[in-house]
Amino acid sequence: MKRLLSLLAIPLLVAAAPAPKAPGDIVNAAPPGDWRTLDPDNTLYMRLASGGVVTIELAPDFAPVTVANIRALVRAHYFDGSFITREQDNYVVQWSADDAHEKAQAKLKGVAEFDRKPRPSFRALPDRDTYAPRAGFDGDFPAASDGRREWLVHCYGMVGAGRDNPPNSGTGVELYAVTGQAPRQLDRNITLVGRVVSGMAFLSGLPRSTGGLGFYMLPSQRTKIVSIRLARDEPQRTPLQVLRTDSASFHAYVEARRNRRDAWFVHPAGHIDVCNIPIPARPSR
Amino acid sequence: MKRLLSLLAIPLLVAAAPAPKAPGDIVNAAPPGDWRTLDPDNTLYMRLASGGVVTIELAPDFAPVTVANIRALVRAHYFDGSFITREQDNYVVQWSADDAHEKAQAKLKGVAEFDRKPRPSFRALPDRDTYAPRAGFDGDFPAASDGRREWLVHCYGMVGAGRDNPPNSGTGVELYAVTGQAPRQLDRNITLVGRVVSGMAFLSGLPRSTGGLGFYMLPSQRTKIVSIRLARDEPQRTPLQVLRTDSASFHAYVEARRNRRDAWFVHPAGHIDVCNIPIPARPSR
Repeated sequence: MKRLLSLLAIPLLVAAAPAPKAPGDIVNAAPPGDWRTLDPDNTLYMRLASGGVVTIELAPDFAPVTVANIRALVRAHYFDGSFITREQDNYVVQWSADDAHEKAQAKLKGVAEFDRKPRPSFRALPDRDTYAPRAGFDGDFPAASDGRREWLVHCYGMVGAGRDNPPNSGTGVELYAVTGQAPRQLDRNITLVGRVVSGMAFLSGLPRSTGGLGFYMLPSQRTKIVSIRLARDEPQRTPLQVLRTDSASFHAYVEARRNRRDAWFVHPAGHIDVCNIPIPARPSR
Repeated sequence: MKRLLSLLAIPLLVAAAPAPKAPGDIVNAAPPGDWRTLDPDNTLYMRLASGGVVTIELAPDFAPVTVANIRALVRAHYFDGSFITREQDNYVVQWSADDAHEKAQAKLKGVAEFDRKPRPSFRALPDRDTYAPRAGFDGDFPAASDGRREWLVHCYGMVGAGRDNPPNSGTGVELYAVTGQAPRQLDRNITLVGRVVSGMAFLSGLPRSTGGLGFYMLPSQRTKIVSIRLARDEPQRTPLQVLRTDSASFHAYVEARRNRRDAWFVHPAGHIDVCNIPIPARPSR
């Protein structure tokens, strides 16, 4: 019964309908100037032994010290041959170099880069946010603000630097990515350093660990990380573009997601959560 | 470096600390009367060929017709030998009996059970919700209300009946579970029939499909469903209990999650999203 295969088949099927415009149509029609090519100095390629490549965009404007640490670790090939050590269901996936991270940690400065002064580049959504007075976007990242401080928020795919109890103990030697419902209770409690722009499914689709806090119990359960490289250092890179969050196309895309008017929907939501707005990405053209 | 293994190690490590009480401590200390044993007439066991068992609690008070359909399908062994047909990253996993569902669908009545009259059992959280005037819990389920209508919300692990464009085309022959950021835009647009109480990781940890809308491209990629049975029909069942959402323990648990005061946190959030409150479950005692 073919028509039942289209159940929940909202985004792609509707692309064929004439009007109103679905979110995907708006993205496809965005002019070249509404796209931004990722900076190779702020882009990481994480190659997994499974064959997957995860592309991460760093956020030096929010976490300058921690991002500098991560660049140095990557250039020292610190993560090469390391492992995905943790996959806690509906929470985070985490990776680090077990044997090397005590030594690496000792050499690095940890700074609690949990928030910063607000910048004019922050654009708030009109929608209520449960956790912050205002939520929206700043550059290529979901962010929030209370007018006095601004911070990155823990949406799906955001990448952070694990830490122990001292707030400044996160240096970048151990990283995590959000794989579940946005754990917004972590906002302003830990340093977010970027987000996964493509390849997230290679991290989210790993078997969950039943060990405490999702740490894999057996070394054989871990997925090996072949390497993490800065795009700048890769001769054969595939640059990605992301839709500029300050563009007219992005604004229209958000509105189309806020009020879905495709034929399938009978009750447009009228509101949208900042973590329900994936930032569109594509290979550079 | 052992201490770094505790990064983000909030829930379990804190159980050893004296005060304040962490969410897990509150759950462990909940008296027997604060737990409710799942009704075997509303409990499904989904056995996967991978060995996993997924326990689903049905919600007949919200979707009486669709739940009755599902019970009838289960008792006719409709799902036995069917497959997980879809795993769309950060969205849903879906299953149905390809060969049989056209015939099954024709025999069943589809009713759009998207919302209902509010009941006094609905308990609103004090926290702002992005999508609804009020969000909270009703019985064993996350729910929302605008005072005129009440509905189940699409949190992680919620189970619904797929449908095509006609609102009454969802009968229960094709089911889905939420595996990503709560797709709240689906609220009041499709019939939710229950939620996964245990074993969610067997569904969320499956490899993501790269096919359109997350449908697996090759039959070999699908995970086989050995059987789905009603607990009532299982001689050897393992009853589960869930923490009553109208209990003092649940109230304290929510507050402990809203304002994390364990040593790791420097900035308690002060707010919580209804979809960031997993309802605790345990084997019956």
